[in-house]
Amino acid sequence: MIRGLGLLLLICGVGIAGAQEFSSYVNPFIGTSNYGATNPGAIAPRGMVSVSPFNVAGKQNVLEKDAGWLSNPYVYENTFLTGFSHVNLSGVGCPDLGVILLMPTTGDLETNHLAYGSTYSDEEAATGYYRVKLDRYDVETEMTATTRTGISRYSFPAGKSNILLNLGLGLTNESGASVKVVSPTEIEGMRTVGSFCYYKPEESYPVYFVAEFSHPADEFGVWKTPHRYSGPEAQWMPYNGKTRIMKGYRKEVLGDSVGVYFSYGFEQPTQVEVKVGVSYVSIANARENLRKETSGRTFEELSKSNNDQWNELLSRVKVEGGSEDDKTIFYTALYHTLIHPSTLNDCNGEYPAMATRETLKTEGTRFTVFSLWDTYRNLHPLMSLLYPDQQSDMVKSMLNIYDESGWLPKWELNATETTTMVGDPAGIVLTDTYLRGIQDFDVMKAYEAMKKSAEALEDNPLRPGNSEYWSNGYLTIANAGPVSTTQEYNITDHAIAMLAKELGDQPKYEKFAKQSISYRNLYDAQLQLLRPKNPDGSWYAPYDPAAGANFAKNVGFIEGNAWQYTFMVTHDVHGLIDLMGGEKPFADQLQRVFDEGQFDMANEPDIAYPFLFNYVKGEEWKSQQRVRQLVREYFKNSPDGLPGNDDTGTMSAWVIYSMMGIYPISPGDPVYTLTAPMFDRVTITLDGDYYSGKELVIERTGNPEGYIREVTLDGASHEGYFIDHEKLVNGGVLQMELE
Amino acid sequence: MIRGLGLLLLICGVGIAGAQEFSSYVNPFIGTSNYGATNPGAIAPRGMVSVSPFNVAGKQNVLEKDAGWLSNPYVYENTFLTGFSHVNLSGVGCPDLGVILLMPTTGDLETNHLAYGSTYSDEEAATGYYRVKLDRYDVETEMTATTRTGISRYSFPAGKSNILLNLGLGLTNESGASVKVVSPTEIEGMRTVGSFCYYKPEESYPVYFVAEFSHPADEFGVWKTPHRYSGPEAQWMPYNGKTRIMKGYRKEVLGDSVGVYFSYGFEQPTQVEVKVGVSYVSIANARENLRKETSGRTFEELSKSNNDQWNELLSRVKVEGGSEDDKTIFYTALYHTLIHPSTLNDCNGEYPAMATRETLKTEGTRFTVFSLWDTYRNLHPLMSLLYPDQQSDMVKSMLNIYDESGWLPKWELNATETTTMVGDPAGIVLTDTYLRGIQDFDVMKAYEAMKKSAEALEDNPLRPGNSEYWSNGYLTIANAGPVSTTQEYNITDHAIAMLAKELGDQPKYEKFAKQSISYRNLYDAQLQLLRPKNPDGSWYAPYDPAAGANFAKNVGFIEGNAWQYTFMVTHDVHGLIDLMGGEKPFADQLQRVFDEGQFDMANEPDIAYPFLFNYVKGEEWKSQQRVRQLVREYFKNSPDGLPGNDDTGTMSAWVIYSMMGIYPISPGDPVYTLTAPMFDRVTITLDGDYYSGKELVIERTGNPEGYIREVTLDGASHEGYFIDHEKLVNGGVLQMELE
Repeated sequence: MIRGLGLLLLICGVGIAGAQEFSSYVNPFIGTSNYGATNPGAIAPRGMVSVSPFNVAGKQNVLEKDAGWLSNPYVYENTFLTGFSHVNLSGVGCPDLGVILLMPTTGDLETNHLAYGSTYSDEEAATGYYRVKLDRYDVETEMTATTRTGISRYSFPAGKSNILLNLGLGLTNESGASVKVVSPTEIEGMRTVGSFCYYKPEESYPVYFVAEFSHPADEFGVWKTPHRYSGPEAQWMPYNGKTRIMKGYRKEVLGDSVGVYFSYGFEQPTQVEVKVGVSYVSIANARENLRKETSGRTFEELSKSNNDQWNELLSRVKVEGGSEDDKTIFYTALYHTLIHPSTLNDCNGEYPAMATRETLKTEGTRFTVFSLWDTYRNLHPLMSLLYPDQQSDMVKSMLNIYDESGWLPKWELNATETTTMVGDPAGIVLTDTYLRGIQDFDVMKAYEAMKKSAEALEDNPLRPGNSEYWSNGYLTIANAGPVSTTQEYNITDHAIAMLAKELGDQPKYEKFAKQSISYRNLYDAQLQLLRPKNPDGSWYAPYDPAAGANFAKNVGFIEGNAWQYTFMVTHDVHGLIDLMGGEKPFADQLQRVFDEGQFDMANEPDIAYPFLFNYVKGEEWKSQQRVRQLVREYFKNSPDGLPGNDDTGTMSAWVIYSMMGIYPISPGDPVYTLTAPMFDRVTITLDGDYYSGKELVIERTGNPEGYIREVTLDGASHEGYFIDHEKLVNGGVLQMELE
Repeated sequence: MIRGLGLLLLICGVGIAGAQEFSSYVNPFIGTSNYGATNPGAIAPRGMVSVSPFNVAGKQNVLEKDAGWLSNPYVYENTFLTGFSHVNLSGVGCPDLGVILLMPTTGDLETNHLAYGSTYSDEEAATGYYRVKLDRYDVETEMTATTRTGISRYSFPAGKSNILLNLGLGLTNESGASVKVVSPTEIEGMRTVGSFCYYKPEESYPVYFVAEFSHPADEFGVWKTPHRYSGPEAQWMPYNGKTRIMKGYRKEVLGDSVGVYFSYGFEQPTQVEVKVGVSYVSIANARENLRKETSGRTFEELSKSNNDQWNELLSRVKVEGGSEDDKTIFYTALYHTLIHPSTLNDCNGEYPAMATRETLKTEGTRFTVFSLWDTYRNLHPLMSLLYPDQQSDMVKSMLNIYDESGWLPKWELNATETTTMVGDPAGIVLTDTYLRGIQDFDVMKAYEAMKKSAEALEDNPLRPGNSEYWSNGYLTIANAGPVSTTQEYNITDHAIAMLAKELGDQPKYEKFAKQSISYRNLYDAQLQLLRPKNPDGSWYAPYDPAAGANFAKNVGFIEGNAWQYTFMVTHDVHGLIDLMGGEKPFADQLQRVFDEGQFDMANEPDIAYPFLFNYVKGEEWKSQQRVRQLVREYFKNSPDGLPGNDDTGTMSAWVIYSMMGIYPISPGDPVYTLTAPMFDRVTITLDGDYYSGKELVIERTGNPEGYIREVTLDGASHEGYFIDHEKLVNGGVLQMELE
């Protein structure tokens, strides 16, 4: 999309792109405002590398990095660009990565990003392509990417020009880099990243890179900015705290703030391409990644190849009807679900093992960036439906992590366990994947792994408080966020029970099925809400159920309050209905969540709430109404078109499902609940290896803004608002008639 | 020497060591106080590596690093030891290196050197061996070294112990390191050093190392101390500015302050050896250096081999008579002249080229640490006399530097040109070496190189102000230290003239001989002193000739004043005598320098003064008296036994010559002046490749405290107080009879 010309391009786009150009419906600017935390940079599907404009340094900007945990390299409203970063996270809630920054400038060398930054214009972003003009230098910059290499093309005017590689600046709060000019066309080095969420600072690690330039530098050098000394040294050092330039330097430069410049004197306007290969294993692998993925191919070829990959993946779902904006919202969301989990292994299969970072080798893709507290809810079920081959490798990666570290992942990032958020969500994903029919992984290992985290009472990094959880049946305020955590453990225990049942392990099935409903002990019938308990079993008091909204800290819950958590028992909705005294009180209480403004579209605990009216006969229209309203209100074809952090695609997966008319209501149970589709027709090409290989069509008939009157599957009437995954993956037509 | 027991050991030493144990007369503590800037660490002759105790961090110490440019890792009076550094400079005037610090501790891990430091006792130092007990940990530590590897042996008590490798701390003011645990017995990494004299900060560079441990660590990890962030980041980082431990970490850790710990749980008292191989080229070379120099050899074998090397070199001069202290002063001085210039190349011959740091290969030894403003005066002539093979490689190294960078060295340090001090001294060394008979180097290249620096009028890094120097004949206050600098350039021009004459280049001989006495223009007949001139040729006024003593800055001179510089025209003493109006006024004025307290034993410009009475017939006894008095006053067998900075052996060379009774009075002229020897007999074994291979004996007869009555060479009477180098290197007996 050309920035500011989105509408125009969309109109043009229809004609140009034709029916098969799904990628033309991707607007990478969606989510770049309103803390969506996406970026418009060029990236290949599940790429290790993306090349993103970096505009979050400098007080000229509306939002600076770290302000309010700002966790993206790019903010739409900002105006001051200080380079292009090569490893970036998309849609996360804490700053990390955003390093290996390239910046083209003209004129005299300036190495301070606050001094060399520029405003920009003519911004354009598409699948595998990003372009922007740097106003101050009159340099047009274009980017594309392969899985492990970022490719930049700078169109310089005649005269003195510079390309800066800044290893001091970054979104991460880690520092430390090593860089070496290998030749006038090559740089190699590494940069420390890590400490995601300002947490577990011991889990920092290096990212390695090699940068290859199409034009040899006329002059090159490195710079280094030492920290300011005080004391006796300070009086002798004229360069104390000042940046120092080392011209022609060819050895490693080490430190917290270092960089390299390549300078040119162009007699005429000249294009220079810079390719940056990346690896989390070694510089040698970064070089091999770069060579294997880009050698002998032009920028145009690489960009086209990237776009083709996106197009192929996006084409697995074809939507018809709906506005151009709806299509853009849909395909951009799908694009966002295809970024993380992302690729960790190099071309040669090598990757750093979990925790030890020992170099290991994988056959398939070793994935990373598992934000499982978010993604277990809908992203992994969506991957199981649309890209089961990828989901299979994701599950295998999770089991490798277990092999390597002894534990399943929780919030894994580049082979470190950040232990962000609560719960023990991996088991839910494993069961859910298996029960949806993706079974080409070692299910007995998966079962063993999930039992381990469920049953280890001491020194359990995944389940703090597990001892109390099993002895009491629930957590008390002796542990952090006891209600939320009990609920999360319950959902996982439900998943374990489901797998135990599938595997014929009756004793475990009974044990975990029983434990999975222990949240019931925390139900306060008077409040009709969950409520924290003291260690002696009494209710925590005084107690304000509304406390904890908007991420405020509170005693019982993590990132939420009693309203936002009480219904997060999708594995036991009928149990909750009973606790509340029947369907009517349940539906009334659920309605209050929305009426009293407690529903938070931007946070995971309550994102299934809109679908829960489906559990109450006669109230199902409320789900359809609510989902449609939320999609319209929070998901837009504009930079603020996400309700908040995309949460590595969780919000995107939510809107994809919601617009298709099905939702995986209870992760771990291979079932969807239904809602009114927002397209006339959705055609999913089912994978032939895992499923039928046929097409699944979801067809909407009748009044597009109406409510479901009848549901048929391949012409046969379908009762109720739930449908098994198994039935859908045989292919066929799921028709919903609205009136 | 055992610290505090020096005298006792000396008495014992006589019996133990026997006549051939020259190394037993080395007291490495000499120069470790009074800013001598030596250290007592273990080092092989001209070693790249030394392992020195590091006790200059922490306010507990009398002198902290950088206080008054404190430039050594160890100060005798200090008491708080924070490790052992592996690359160190000896006897220099600015802090650098002093990095790759190992420290053994016991008990819980502590990574802050100010917290883990310890007092110490039972200190002992000898050639190739240093030992000390760390009081706090009850750990005995011992060190030895090969040319490129430091070997430490720690005797731990039973219990929890740690070995720390601290890459944050250092004497250098550079920062930045990379380190990686390769295995539980090996660490590799690099550390940035440079910016010698807080100058030319662009000339920082990495030193590479590999550390091999005899015992695998039971536990290991790295630590990293980030600098303190301010601004938005700061509020989220609980670890802001705090040291963070990464247990079991196996990837590179990068940053300004990083380190590694190896921890052990010993069931019984255990010795652990750590070998640290070093290279200025690469980690691979550091590893190869370590393996080649130490594999399969025990600590005892390595220590003995080191001592044997010292013994062999020291045995080239045998002194008899004189006190035990005199012998210790003498051999320790000789030891100090055999430290720098030191080895730059790796075992495989590779070394970093001057300036570019490109990897090149040498056949012989590539030397580094050329403090030529100091060493041209006496150290290189001494090396030419005693170790002409080494001096030959030093000269070849200087010519390689010219090939690599286009310029001869001035103050070269590890392939960087620090451009410290004034003048263009390399040509003096080249001529002096050639005229003393060491001619197996490319003299035409040397001649070309010295002419280049003498004649390049612009962009001349060695001779600032050269244009004015040639147009005026001298420098004016338009340039820094114009009188000193004119004198230095004059001495070099004299050397060039001497080489031109030798090579038969009459025009250049005339040109440079004429220019070499241009200092005469700066002679103020009224003051009988040199004096700076204004650019218009008038005297600089008002003028205080005494200003500039004790290193105070002044207009005319660098590190000195008119008194300390006026006689520094040893190539033209007869000219100066004429200027002063004859021998009497010359001798009177020279006497005034001493009488009025202007003579500075600790600085180079006036160190030849005591010998200048030899130019006045009848006054020669004053030289003998003065030299003897200065040796007694300033050179002692005690930590404060050097007058100040050893200046990479220049002060030591001065005392060696002075005690032998000969002095290379005019560098560039292969001649010695005579003074009363301080031993009964000095026997020099002359090199067979460059000289006669015979022995040169300098024999003192008569009253040891008397003055020279008669000089004979091989029995024939020798007229006057000067003797040609050529006559001495044929061997024979130079007898001086004192009365």
